Amino acid sequence: MTSSPYKLTATQALELLKNNDMTVEAYALSLLHRIKENDGTVKAWAHLDPDFVLSQARALDQIPEDMRGPLHGLAIGVKDIMDTKDMPTQYGSPIYQGHQPGSDSSAVAILRAAGALIFGKTTTTEFAVTNSGPETTNPHDPNRTPGGSSCGSAAAVADLQVPLSLGAQTGGSIIRPASYTGVFAMKPTFNAISTAGQKPMAPTFDTLGFFARSVEDLQLLADAFALQDDEPPRGIPLDEISVALIETPMWSSAGPGTVSAMKQAATILQKNNVKVEKVSLPPEVADVEALSQIQKVIINGEAQVSFLREYRVDKANLAAEIRDMVENTSNITHKEMTEAYDAYSKMRNVVNKLAENYTVILTPSAEDEAPLGLGDMGSPTFNTLWTGFHMPVINIPAFVGANDMPVGISLVGARFCDQQLLRISKVLGEVLMSHGGWKGDEESEGLAS
Amino acid sequence: MTSSPYKLTATQALELLKNNDMTVEAYALSLLHRIKENDGTVKAWAHLDPDFVLSQARALDQIPEDMRGPLHGLAIGVKDIMDTKDMPTQYGSPIYQGHQPGSDSSAVAILRAAGALIFGKTTTTEFAVTNSGPETTNPHDPNRTPGGSSCGSAAAVADLQVPLSLGAQTGGSIIRPASYTGVFAMKPTFNAISTAGQKPMAPTFDTLGFFARSVEDLQLLADAFALQDDEPPRGIPLDEISVALIETPMWSSAGPGTVSAMKQAATILQKNNVKVEKVSLPPEVADVEALSQIQKVIINGEAQVSFLREYRVDKANLAAEIRDMVENTSNITHKEMTEAYDAYSKMRNVVNKLAENYTVILTPSAEDEAPLGLGDMGSPTFNTLWTGFHMPVINIPAFVGANDMPVGISLVGARFCDQQLLRISKVLGEVLMSHGGWKGDEESEGLAS
Repeated sequence: MTSSPYKLTATQALELLKNNDMTVEAYALSLLHRIKENDGTVKAWAHLDPDFVLSQARALDQIPEDMRGPLHGLAIGVKDIMDTKDMPTQYGSPIYQGHQPGSDSSAVAILRAAGALIFGKTTTTEFAVTNSGPETTNPHDPNRTPGGSSCGSAAAVADLQVPLSLGAQTGGSIIRPASYTGVFAMKPTFNAISTAGQKPMAPTFDTLGFFARSVEDLQLLADAFALQDDEPPRGIPLDEISVALIETPMWSSAGPGTVSAMKQAATILQKNNVKVEKVSLPPEVADVEALSQIQKVIINGEAQVSFLREYRVDKANLAAEIRDMVENTSNITHKEMTEAYDAYSKMRNVVNKLAENYTVILTPSAEDEAPLGLGDMGSPTFNTLWTGFHMPVINIPAFVGANDMPVGISLVGARFCDQQLLRISKVLGEVLMSHGGWKGDEESEGLAS
Repeated sequence: MTSSPYKLTATQALELLKNNDMTVEAYALSLLHRIKENDGTVKAWAHLDPDFVLSQARALDQIPEDMRGPLHGLAIGVKDIMDTKDMPTQYGSPIYQGHQPGSDSSAVAILRAAGALIFGKTTTTEFAVTNSGPETTNPHDPNRTPGGSSCGSAAAVADLQVPLSLGAQTGGSIIRPASYTGVFAMKPTFNAISTAGQKPMAPTFDTLGFFARSVEDLQLLADAFALQDDEPPRGIPLDEISVALIETPMWSSAGPGTVSAMKQAATILQKNNVKVEKVSLPPEVADVEALSQIQKVIINGEAQVSFLREYRVDKANLAAEIRDMVENTSNITHKEMTEAYDAYSKMRNVVNKLAENYTVILTPSAEDEAPLGLGDMGSPTFNTLWTGFHMPVINIPAFVGANDMPVGISLVGARFCDQQLLRISKVLGEVLMSHGGWKGDEESEGLAS
């Protein structure tokens, strides 16, 4: 058994746990120790009860070897907008202080049934809507944000406090914090995983995903959630891979860290005989202002319905930004909404068809390194479009910005080709991680693609 | 105060409650008495605790007059696929026997905040998916089904046990039982009301709606849920109303009761100077087999994701039909799903454009009267297409079938024109109810449009 289990990736830990080379209790103790050391700075947890974690760990150790689940004993942090039957769930809102759901969200129940150790609840902005609030810091620089809204889930994995965590993305709430904190993350195809029991914001964009320290670890969760392509994924030699490099119409928002990361990524891949072709999004998707307006109409229009409940029950404790959505202060009409749905439906088709012409799309994960301070959790500008296209996205944390902070790039596949995207991300991730410059925490044994 | 409050429509009861002419407790006692008398036959309730109802009623009576909500004291039954914080919620499934959610569904919370008396949980088929199970009978003939899956909500309102109830429709689970039991019902525009805290089946079709004994009563709930059109609804004189009579491509499934109801409806409206024009759905929607296949692909494909949780947690207690969906025994591919989404997106547009050329659409609510027996809860064939088009639908229970059972017709509006549809349904409903032949229970003071 390793002396520092908290450093293991999920895949590494799972092997030890399955072979009885490490007890779940010992594993949990190591993680709890790590958290105790760093929690004063990182503050990734909305709820964590060490005694309860240990009692759960011991219960898992009691399960006979032949009855253990595929994720036996793996510690998983859960974004605090997802219900947990044995832990309070506050959705980042004062309205729900101390709120105790009666059951798990669908995703949590599936992980629990697979033998995972549901470790605690990670911080989120209010209802995953607002862009500040939690005191969570970036594990690589406490003066910088980990990004929102899945800040706690990203920070906990980046700081080796848990190997896996669940997040959710309506705009860029998974991929952006993954880029800022230097971890792998996956936003699967829309509705490939049920969001039942997760606080909704905009149901046609809301997507559940996960953070990890390797592509293999993302694969563990993709399999647990039964993600399945129509065709079994196939290995493709590097010199047969074709990458569509898409800067997106938001490219002018890219800071030096992202400009450099995209350039490096292309160079590294080409040096490894991967074909990289710069591709523009089709004309339907080329107008950045129109696109941003369409996204706003759908997300705010749907949020108006999603938060009517809190507005009626306790308006005074709802963020002004969310009150405005419910009161529709930006005067979004249903006509605009139906037009936006139609426009997105067409764009979704066109972009997915484009994706099918390449092995994978390469595109930015964020504007740049994590911004300084905790008041601004960064912009989802490079993420929301893909969320709306319903396409699977994986962040590869391979690069370094001007302040030695991580900068990721996104690999994007066609809808419902999640397993193929994982396969390709493993191959390309290895190449990019080897040459991109980001090494993560020196002490980590993880952060290998 | 009336001697039989249970006979009142919600609008009638609300006036008495608001003016202190009736206490909530007295009202609840009358309803409970009605239930006690008939429950042995109708069996509409999955959970009902009379003592708890009365304690809640007395608490509502204590609220000072100037602090009472817009639905003060109105008794509402809730389909048992929606979470309630103070009542068990079983989703019609043995897996969830005795399950107690920690909070209300979004809709229940909104009604509670408006002062409604959440009365009890009404029966549903398993997860609102299967088409048999509950012992609930049709209040107009105990040998017939009330229809599914919102059987208890329809039967309770039809039997004057509560004036209002919540239901949900993925195919035809609101409009069909409303037609079978002779009550008004509304399936609003898709996602006009949040379905959070309601067990999902197919998230792009799942729609929350309600049952009542008048259009005014439907209006009460539409307002409570803040349904709002882009343009304020306007009154239209009968001779300026244009009705598109759409038999749908499923017309060959219509039995004599529905054929006669549609014919009568057209005749009555025309006699009242309403213009009725027989209209065919556009070619995209004309192939009944293609349409039914598309619906199956979407609904079953999404159900595969929705029920993975129960499959993993307790497969043995899941209906075989739902197990088959999760195991994808009909081999639905993601390619078929994305094609089905695209096809529905196009149809949705075309049919909504068509709807905008008329004041309202007239179309069947069900194949015929409620079938005999409880084993077959009827077919949603005339409903699923409109659910998928995301258009608001109101059942008008105006007609009578060969066995003196009610037969309804549907009025359908364009997406997000819910308030306009209510306005038109009130006017046309009055005409149709006056001449259609269905009078409901003799003792009811309700069932007026």
